[in-house]
Formats: sequence, structure tokens, C-alpha cells
Amino acid sequence: MENMQQLPGFSHPPSAELQRESVHHIEAVAERAHHGGGWLLSGIICINVLILGCAIVSSSAFNSVIITPVHRQIFLIVLLLLTLLWMLFYTVCTHRKDQAVLLKDSHAGPLWLRAGLLLFGLLSLLMDIFKIANYVGYLHCDSPVKVAFPAVQAVFLLYQTYFFWIHSKDCVQVHTNFTRCGLTLTLSTNLVVWMAAVTEESLHQTEAPHFNTNVTYKMYRASYDGNIKCKCSHSACDTFKEAFYYLYPFIIEYSMFASAMAYVMWKNVGRVVEDQHHHNIKFRPKDVCFGPVMGILLVLVGLVTFILYEVDIMEEDYERRQRALLIHFIVNIVILCLMSLSTVVGCIVYRLDQREHVSEKNPTRSLDVGLLIGASMGQSILSYFTIVAVAAEGVHGHLNALNLVSAVVIVLQLGLQNYFIIEGLNREPFHVMQEATLHTNAHAFQEQVDVSEVQEGNKTRYLFTSDRDEPNWKRRVLKEVCAFLLMGNVILWIMPAFGARPQFDHPFEIHFYNFTMWAAIVNIGLPFGIFYRMHSVASLFEVYLIS
Amino acid sequence: MENMQQLPGFSHPPSAELQRESVHHIEAVAERAHHGGGWLLSGIICINVLILGCAIVSSSAFNSVIITPVHRQIFLIVLLLLTLLWMLFYTVCTHRKDQAVLLKDSHAGPLWLRAGLLLFGLLSLLMDIFKIANYVGYLHCDSPVKVAFPAVQAVFLLYQTYFFWIHSKDCVQVHTNFTRCGLTLTLSTNLVVWMAAVTEESLHQTEAPHFNTNVTYKMYRASYDGNIKCKCSHSACDTFKEAFYYLYPFIIEYSMFASAMAYVMWKNVGRVVEDQHHHNIKFRPKDVCFGPVMGILLVLVGLVTFILYEVDIMEEDYERRQRALLIHFIVNIVILCLMSLSTVVGCIVYRLDQREHVSEKNPTRSLDVGLLIGASMGQSILSYFTIVAVAAEGVHGHLNALNLVSAVVIVLQLGLQNYFIIEGLNREPFHVMQEATLHTNAHAFQEQVDVSEVQEGNKTRYLFTSDRDEPNWKRRVLKEVCAFLLMGNVILWIMPAFGARPQFDHPFEIHFYNFTMWAAIVNIGLPFGIFYRMHSVASLFEVYLIS
Repeated sequence: MENMQQLPGFSHPPSAELQRESVHHIEAVAERAHHGGGWLLSGIICINVLILGCAIVSSSAFNSVIITPVHRQIFLIVLLLLTLLWMLFYTVCTHRKDQAVLLKDSHAGPLWLRAGLLLFGLLSLLMDIFKIANYVGYLHCDSPVKVAFPAVQAVFLLYQTYFFWIHSKDCVQVHTNFTRCGLTLTLSTNLVVWMAAVTEESLHQTEAPHFNTNVTYKMYRASYDGNIKCKCSHSACDTFKEAFYYLYPFIIEYSMFASAMAYVMWKNVGRVVEDQHHHNIKFRPKDVCFGPVMGILLVLVGLVTFILYEVDIMEEDYERRQRALLIHFIVNIVILCLMSLSTVVGCIVYRLDQREHVSEKNPTRSLDVGLLIGASMGQSILSYFTIVAVAAEGVHGHLNALNLVSAVVIVLQLGLQNYFIIEGLNREPFHVMQEATLHTNAHAFQEQVDVSEVQEGNKTRYLFTSDRDEPNWKRRVLKEVCAFLLMGNVILWIMPAFGARPQFDHPFEIHFYNFTMWAAIVNIGLPFGIFYRMHSVASLFEVYLIS
Repeated sequence: MENMQQLPGFSHPPSAELQRESVHHIEAVAERAHHGGGWLLSGIICINVLILGCAIVSSSAFNSVIITPVHRQIFLIVLLLLTLLWMLFYTVCTHRKDQAVLLKDSHAGPLWLRAGLLLFGLLSLLMDIFKIANYVGYLHCDSPVKVAFPAVQAVFLLYQTYFFWIHSKDCVQVHTNFTRCGLTLTLSTNLVVWMAAVTEESLHQTEAPHFNTNVTYKMYRASYDGNIKCKCSHSACDTFKEAFYYLYPFIIEYSMFASAMAYVMWKNVGRVVEDQHHHNIKFRPKDVCFGPVMGILLVLVGLVTFILYEVDIMEEDYERRQRALLIHFIVNIVILCLMSLSTVVGCIVYRLDQREHVSEKNPTRSLDVGLLIGASMGQSILSYFTIVAVAAEGVHGHLNALNLVSAVVIVLQLGLQNYFIIEGLNREPFHVMQEATLHTNAHAFQEQVDVSEVQEGNKTRYLFTSDRDEPNWKRRVLKEVCAFLLMGNVILWIMPAFGARPQFDHPFEIHFYNFTMWAAIVNIGLPFGIFYRMHSVASLFEVYLIS
């Protein structure tokens, strides 16, 4: 509410006569926020670009004769350039205006999201550079668009990452309609890039002429060369090609992150009331020990087995690959079971706990919860497809059995963890509760009218004293559980993000669903799963702080 | 707010001492509405059932060897029976309890939705009866599940239609957690039924061994017989089979309607505050004449050409079929252009109009708007795929050109109409505006404290006088536009709902995308398009009333 003071009309001292004026002013501001149907127009633009993109991308995938990847890339270049123009306009004109950004939404664009954007952006940039280097070798016999597209995309990646790093918290107040449209254009451009990347990755995986499931996914991937008639003019082509296909998962992640940030910025356009009062909660790791220690152990064990898996799975030896899969499944199941157990403990503590639920509306938190549940669906889809396949085929061999168990445990863990995180985010923070109790005891007989002011004064004073109190056992258990789960999610993020693909290395589902379908499922589900783990880490940290 | 009086604790006369108690009570009620994470648990259940359903349905479609349609039907029977049990429990136990339904949401389950549910429910019931009659003939050599499934589904359809007809407006107050879970189970069951129906319909259309695109869709459909080895024991089998495949679109529509109603009921569980004060607006058709007359003309022209189309398209003669398509496209383009023009006029009037936007939050309206935009995407997808196909192939012949023009005009009309409807719904109703103006003039110098009471009294009196005023020209234009658009949407609903399928009769897209993909697109997009037209009719009627 402090930022509201900067608005003209709020600087007057509050008097009975001027009060009506300021009320009118608030109404005018609220009206401006909703005015002109700009949000509606921007929504319509977004939907239309998305559907057109969907039509072009899927046509270029299914009908390779008439609509070629070149057409798709021309469409993408147009979209990228338009978005780039808007972002430049925003930085140069909109953002420089007086009162363009009256307040910043402190919940939007948290550090983990921006850091993730930067990391994946750099890796995607690398992919584009490899692509340019590769397709330059084909320039004499292939379309120049194949060089132009990664070049434009590289510029776009650089500028967009800078843009979101600087502006993701903005609540824009001027040019609202135009900004809304620009942001939905950014959103849909990123989603079309996402669709295109998912499609290309899936097609590439399935284009092998005679796919032999005894050859592992990675060995096949390395040996693939799609272009037969057109020969590369320099010798490093194959290396570049191999390298850039490894980097596809990062552009998929990058465009998901950018879409989420564009959406939050779109929601914040025209927002004038800051509904969050921030308590400066300090992170004090010495409150807890058991949870973090166990968690770090988990991460170490996970890392060691992950490295062993990565080494063994590249081997020619069938036995060693089977052993690698076996260890990977067992370690995963153990990690997931431990995490589920600790989540159950946390949920029981919630039941015993008397903390109230937060009653006020919080749009950023609702979005957060929506993203969490949405992203968890990606991982669930993979698990349910595995469960159906194993249930239909019957369990033959212990690898299959472990695959089934691991899928079931994942579904269980996702449900429990979602419940735990969302319940945790919806509870009143502990220190606020304690204040309220103290306050009720001290001022029970005082007049109702003075209470709010006294409470204000009390609150600030209390924040200093409460930090010295020992946490009670419920708080402590919740903090231990959060810390443990956080570490668990870190290792479950690292493994798929850095290349573990048991979904392809264990060829059971490929046989069952055939490769095309399974590759599509994995390429859509897995990036959401990775996003989910990162998001969980951030949310668990928040739950840790307010517990 | 009147219904709040029935709550215990609200019947006390308001005194200074008891006020605190009632505040506590309100908090307790609000807490109860949010308590226990029941909404979270129900959401988790819904997502899991949906994903499992998705996995089973798509496996049974793509991998016909191991997971057969029989497995899918067993899964569906289990889901249907569980949902049926919950609905029985709700009617017998939950609804009979004291204070189970304190208030009804007058916006939920409007007449058009319930009437649509009843209509499509009856036609789906007919489909199930035909299915039973057909599969009874195969009992000696095929699975009895194929008879059991339509039988269970018929019972489910009957009971669910009754259930939503009676209970769709309920805001349940007891057993909230259990009711939430039951409702999300109902929601996901209907969505799985929807998925299964879409898949079956698409598979049936593509199972023809040598699809000849000179033979029209309907002729092919009639001649198809999938089961070769197992012969039917009675002679009417072919007739039944032919009949029930015609009825598939209705079960697809039915499950969409039921899902929408289950979702609204779920949103209303635990709701205690009625945020709508209803003005009893009378529908007075004599205010307008030009719009409805032109609209009725449009409907008549549309009906005549629709009947001609249906007759001609069944002919063997190639020339007559081409002529039928030609007339159909031209009439569609003319209807859409007229509608777009009148929408533009309406949007200009909105710009000139000084009415305020409604500021209060209204969850049912937001859902309405969401459904409208979501459903319009179905039609847009079809149009964009057509545009991409024609743009890539180039325009050859006037039928193709008309196809392209009609697709472009549809996208334009959808965007304009969505804008018009949503802007209309978000404006303050005209009579409220007039009251406000009158009231400001009359009471400008009166004390601020008394205003609210006086306004209440004034409002009821004013409602009688305002009805005698002549509407100004802006109101009149808006009403004419609404009436015209309403009629236009009626005819655009009738044509696809009763069997016009130019998407298959004009084989251009089938050639371009191949049959499987195009059938899937049409079977997903078209039902949403039909739903959109019905929804638009209802929303336009509401816009008409508040203009």
C-alpha cells in the first residue's frame, strides 16, 4: 500500500471533504485496470496465434510433402521478430514513461524461475549456435531459412532472457491494452516454439529407418543422419548435429519457463493494489538437522547411482545395461518411498495443527498452485501409461516389476506432495498465529475500535522477540519434512534434467505403444515433470519459511 | 443474503454484544467452506481418474492387440457404477439432511443447459438401446461386456439426467468433502466417456479398408461392417449398427454438458453468500423488430438450404453433390458475413456507450466466459486447419476458394462475437445505470449514512416506472444486434447438430491430412463448435436482457 502514495490524489492529507475525491480516484484506477476490453482482445490474439501455430506445426509433422519444416520456420521467424519488436518497444517507450510501473509484484518472477530461465536460455543459445554451424555446411543445397531461423532465435533468446530478468515483476500502468497484447503474443510465441521443439524432438527420435530396440536410445541417437542427398561441405557437421539434438530438452524447458513468466506479467498488467504485507522471515537452518542431513545423504546416493547409470547405459554389454537399470529403479523407488513417508508424517502434523487457513485471495499463489498441479500431470501421464502397459502385458522379470512399482510410487508421491505443499501454502504463517494469540490475551478487554492500531504496533515489536523463541515440536517436524522433501526433489530433478532416460533405455513401453506414440508421450510429459520438480523445490522452501 | 437468515446465529436480534458472536459464526462458516482440503483431494482424484482414463482409452485405440475395447468398457463400467452409487447416496442421504442446501445458485444449470442435457440424453439412451439390440446378436461369439456396458450406461444416463435436472443449482453445505469428491468423480467419468466416444467415432470412420474419397462419407458409413468372423444371430443387426453410429455425436455432446454442470456444482459446494441481487427484468420483444425479422429470415433460408443439402449430398450424382456443397458454402458465408457486420455495429455502439463495467466478482459469470472462449476454440481449430491446407495446396476451383473464405470468415466471426458477448456481459445493466443517475440527482445533498437505505427503497419503486420508458437508440441498436445474432447462432447450431458434415463431404482436407488425422480433428473440434453455438444463444439472450 506504500506505493499507492505515489499516485496523484493520494498525497492530500485525508479530510472529510477530500475523501470522496480519493474514492472516485480509486474507482477510476480500478476502471482503468479493466478498461477497453484489452485483456479480451489480447486473449483472442493469443488463442488465434496458438491455434494457427498448432495447425502449422502438426501439418509439417504429419504431412511432410506440402508443408515442410521450412514453412514452419518461416512462420516462427515472423512470430519471433514481432515479439522482439514489441519487447524493444516496451523497454524503450512503455517502461520509460512516468508512472509506468507503480509497483512490483514481489511474488512474480522468483529467483529460481529467473535462474532457470538463464540456465536453459544459455544452453538453448548453444543449441542455436550448433544449428547454425551445422546448416551453414548445407547452404549450397538446402534452404537458407534453416540458417536464418536459429540466428533469429538466438537473438530472441538473448533479448527475452534479459527482458524477463529485468521486467518480470512489473505491474505495468501505461499502454495497458498494447502491453497486454504484446504479452499474450510473447506467451503464444513461446508456446509455439515449445510445440515445434517437442515435435522436432519426437520426429527425430522416430525417424530411424530400422529401429532396433536392443541398441540403446543414445547409441541410436548418435548414429543417426537424416539428410541423405545433400552432403555437408565441412567435416564437423556430424558432431554439431549430434550435439544439438542433445540440447533439445533445454529449449523445451526454456519456452515453458518463459510462458509462465509472460502469463504472470499479463495477469499483473494494470494491477494497482499490493495485497501482500511482507514479514521479513529469516532463514535459520540451525532449527532443523535430521531432515537436511538425511536429504543431503539422499542427494549424494542419488548422484553416485546417476553417474554409474550414465556410464553403464552407454556400454555395449547387455548385462551391464540391465544392471544399471536395476540400480536406477531401486534407488528411485527407495527415494520416492522415503519422501512419501515423510510427507505422510507432515500431513498428520497438519491435521493435529490448529493453524487457520489463509482467507484472503492471492492471485499469484493461485497461479502457483495451478502451475504445480498442471506440471505434476506431466509426470503422472508417464506413470499411468507405464502402469497400463505393465498391467496389460503382465509382469515378466524383475525389471518390469520394478518399473511398475516405481510408476505406482511416483503417482502416490505426487499426490501426497501436492497435498502437502498446497496445504502448507494455504496455512496462516506460524509467527502471525502466535502474534494473534498473544494479542488476544493481552487486549481481551480493550475497546474494539483501538484494536487495529494497537495490533499494528504490536506486530512490528513482536517480530523481533519471536525470533528468539524455540520452535514447538510441530513446527520443527514440519520444517524437517520440508527440508527432506526439498532435497529429494533436487535429486529427482537432476536425474532427468541431465539425461537419464530409463523410459527409452528400458524398451518395454516402446514395444507396447510403438516408438512414435511413446516418444510423443515422453517428450510432452518429461519436461513438465522436470519443471514440476524445480517448482516443488521453490514451493517447499516457501512452506519451510512459513512453518 | 436472505438465505443467510436461516443459519443458526443469524436469528438473534443484532445487538452490540452479540455482534462479535455472529462475526465468529461467519468466520466458522467461511472456514467450513474451505476446510480440510476436500477440494484439493477431489482435484487430485479427478486428475488421476482422467489420466488413467486417457491412458486406457488411447492404448485401446492404438494397440488393439493387448488392451481391447472390452478392457476399456470394463473400466468404464466400474467408473459409471461408482458415480451412480455416489449420486444415489447424494439423493438419499446428503440432500435429505437439515440445512443441506441453504441456497440455490440461480445462475447455475440454466434452462438451455438442462434442456440440452435432456435432449442429448434421450438420443444417447436410444444409442445404448440400439447397441444392446445389436450386440445381443453377437452374444454367442463375442464378449458379454459389450452388452453389459450399454446397459449400465443407459441406467447411468437416465439417473444422471434426473440428478442434474433436480440438483444442478444446489450449493451443498453438508458432507462437503465427500460431495466434492463425488462431483469430481462425476466430472471425470463424463470426460472419460467423452474421450471414449470421440475415439470410437474416429476409429469407426477410419476403419474402412480402402477408403475411396469419391464415395461420400455417409454412403461409406452405411456400408461399413467391421466384424467379419463373428456373424450376427438376428437379421436386424445391420440396421441397428448403422443407426447407433449416427447417434455418436449426441453422447459426445451429452458428456460435455454433464461435465460443465458437474464442474459448476463442484464450484458451488460450500458456497454460502449469494452475491447476486436479481432484478426482475421482463423480456419485451416489441422493443425491437428489424433484428428478429432479419434473423428469422436467415433461419428460414438456412433451413431450406440445409434440407436441400442433406437431400443432394446423399445422391450418387457427382454434379449434384458439388452443387449442394457450393450452395452450402455460399449460404454459410453470407450468414457469417451478415453476423460479423452486425457485431461490428454492436461493438461501435459499446464504444460510444458510457455504461460502467461491472466491478464485483462473479464466479458463475467467469466460468461462463471461460466456457464460451474454450468452446469457440473447437471451431477455430477446424477453420485454421482448413486455412493451412488450402494455403499450402493453393486454391484450385471455386469450391476450394469458398472453403477458404468460409474458414476465414468463421474465425473473424468467432472473434467478434466473443468480444461482443463478453463486453455485453461485463457492462452494468441499463436500468441499474438509470437508477444510479436519477438517484444521484435526487439525493445529492443528503447525508451519506442514510443513502443505502433510501436507495433500496428507491430501487424497487423505480423498477416499475422504468419499464414504461422508451429505450434510447443505443439500447435499441444493441437489442436488435443481439436478436439478430441469436437467430444466426440458432441456424449455425442446427446445421452441424443435425448432420451436415461438409468437412467430410468435401474431400479436400481428407486428401491433405489423411483420413485418420482429419477425423480426429473434426470429432474433437465439431462437438465444441456445436456446444459453442448453443452457449452463445443463451449468452446473447442475457446480453439482450441487460442492454
